[in-house]
Amino acid sequence: MGPHPAVAAIRLAVRRVLRDVLASLPEAPPAPAGPASAGRAPLVLAACSGGADSMALASALAFEAPRAGVRAGAVTVDHGLQAGSAARAREVADRLTALGLDPVETAAVRVGRGGGPEAAARDARYAALDALAERHGAVAVLLGHTRDDQAETVLLGLARGSGTRSLSGMAAVSAGPGATRRYHRPFLAVDRQTTRKACLEQSLPVWDDPHNADPSYTRSRVRHEALPVLEKTLGRGVVEALARTAQLSRDDADALDAWAREAQRAVTGPDGALEVAALGALPPAVRRRVLRRAAIAAGAPAGSLFARHIEETDRLVTAWHGQRPLNLPGRVEARRQGGRLVLQQADRQPIESGTGARDGHG
Amino acid sequence: MGPHPAVAAIRLAVRRVLRDVLASLPEAPPAPAGPASAGRAPLVLAACSGGADSMALASALAFEAPRAGVRAGAVTVDHGLQAGSAARAREVADRLTALGLDPVETAAVRVGRGGGPEAAARDARYAALDALAERHGAVAVLLGHTRDDQAETVLLGLARGSGTRSLSGMAAVSAGPGATRRYHRPFLAVDRQTTRKACLEQSLPVWDDPHNADPSYTRSRVRHEALPVLEKTLGRGVVEALARTAQLSRDDADALDAWAREAQRAVTGPDGALEVAALGALPPAVRRRVLRRAAIAAGAPAGSLFARHIEETDRLVTAWHGQRPLNLPGRVEARRQGGRLVLQQADRQPIESGTGARDGHG
Repeated sequence: MGPHPAVAAIRLAVRRVLRDVLASLPEAPPAPAGPASAGRAPLVLAACSGGADSMALASALAFEAPRAGVRAGAVTVDHGLQAGSAARAREVADRLTALGLDPVETAAVRVGRGGGPEAAARDARYAALDALAERHGAVAVLLGHTRDDQAETVLLGLARGSGTRSLSGMAAVSAGPGATRRYHRPFLAVDRQTTRKACLEQSLPVWDDPHNADPSYTRSRVRHEALPVLEKTLGRGVVEALARTAQLSRDDADALDAWAREAQRAVTGPDGALEVAALGALPPAVRRRVLRRAAIAAGAPAGSLFARHIEETDRLVTAWHGQRPLNLPGRVEARRQGGRLVLQQADRQPIESGTGARDGHG
Repeated sequence: MGPHPAVAAIRLAVRRVLRDVLASLPEAPPAPAGPASAGRAPLVLAACSGGADSMALASALAFEAPRAGVRAGAVTVDHGLQAGSAARAREVADRLTALGLDPVETAAVRVGRGGGPEAAARDARYAALDALAERHGAVAVLLGHTRDDQAETVLLGLARGSGTRSLSGMAAVSAGPGATRRYHRPFLAVDRQTTRKACLEQSLPVWDDPHNADPSYTRSRVRHEALPVLEKTLGRGVVEALARTAQLSRDDADALDAWAREAQRAVTGPDGALEVAALGALPPAVRRRVLRRAAIAAGAPAGSLFARHIEETDRLVTAWHGQRPLNLPGRVEARRQGGRLVLQQADRQPIESGTGARDGHG
């Protein structure tokens, strides 16, 4: 008799990702690991909070890794946000060790305040995961995000209203600073019910992070209030529809970005100015992406560049009636000069070096 | 003292659309209409249910039309779905006449059963509007959909999970069968609160269609249950974010369709087969659109062609391992022949003509 379907599902998902990871390694994958070669096989880490999703992930990695010829380890991050979190992290680490994972690391991080509590915790977590992946030379770090997490991410992106890229959720594979394909999410097509069931079937104790139910977190409100009502009003397939939207939106955004990259090259003169006639011939979706790329290339910080900035810049192309130059974030100025659009950063006053100060302009 | 801001907002929205309609007419717009030329000025119709959105629309059209040099009429459709609907339609027509609109027509339609009650009512309504626009030679028909309707439409599209096009809501301008730019939606950036306020300020009686509050209609549940909860969990800007998503998604979908149209030409040989190598070089988002277009061109009905059909066809390109030919809707077969992909409709048995029947295959 095979494993329970839920256990089979999580193992299959991890198996596929391990195959993908091995196939993308620069050298050929090593022979299946026996005791002798155990120290040499590539290392894959599971990031594990102790919750059902990531405990299911760790258990599937522990099962599949020796069969795939890789070593399996795990990391649990102590965000230090609750009393007893260090003891909790040690307890999770013990459970991971009991699954046969090695190495198992506990990383204590300090959560800052940038961009709200959820973003700050995420930044601290990824910095710790990156550092540990580097230290152990891991070829991949697996993350336990499920289809339900993906659906929540799409709804959060929808609330921003900033278009196709913001609807594309989390990538199945994404980069860390040291590796272009560090993070893998094997469970993006697996639902939360399956990971819970798999833990139950394997008698794995799981820990429910109280933050997940804390209504002061937007994601928690999306999970416990918005999605249930959407399922009630739109039907049971909403989570699946949102996850599919993520994939389709990601592919669309990638294709349009590729087009914009090429179009930008084609419309940019040797001095960096953009040809208005060539811009005007592009579809609006591509033209606005080119303008955004050009503004960022000129020094505008991507995070401060909003749709209204790009729309105003676009009007210099499509609704020209002698407008004054625009001030974009990052001291970037957009101005029309005849048939060309110039995006240029105003001279910065050097603040740190103390040289080149002029006339007291700050 | 100028009009109330809500009244000013609805009039401005209609004024802009009238300007756009006149600018796109084949001949030059006529001189502003006086009594002598009244019979000759182009006619613009407002579609009006008697609810706040479309009464606001009709009132703004009545105000702006003479200033723009167009004639203004209105149509109210009696769907015959409630007792007393005919009397109700006559009452709405009287109110429209009282606004100075001429002609005012009441169209009684029979709602079929195709595609659910909302789709059936919509089909019947547009057929009646098309017929009346043709009969009166109207240059445009204005529809009262607001930003709130747009947000609802995006959520309904999201529930389908079929990608960027399904998130693009209603177009500001769309085609009727006889005219490429027949329908105009001046209020897509105006919220429902503004149209209600404008009716109140102008002492226009409005009628609340009980269907709008009937929870057996999906749109009504979206309006009264889903959107309020999304506003509570994600913040007050959700309606605006959804409406913005519609516009961005529409532009993205248009650009990708344009790319796919061109790519289809480039990868299609003189005999209609597609070059697999050229298909494989396209971004997935473009390649899937090309495959969809090719399947439809081969005879597959667009409405029966689902994402899974296209994904399976795509695997003949990207994951070829000797698969059997696929059967797509509309008796279209997709098969790989060497480096080419052939999409072809199986020979149909002529049913009506009675000639060419062979071997009893249906």
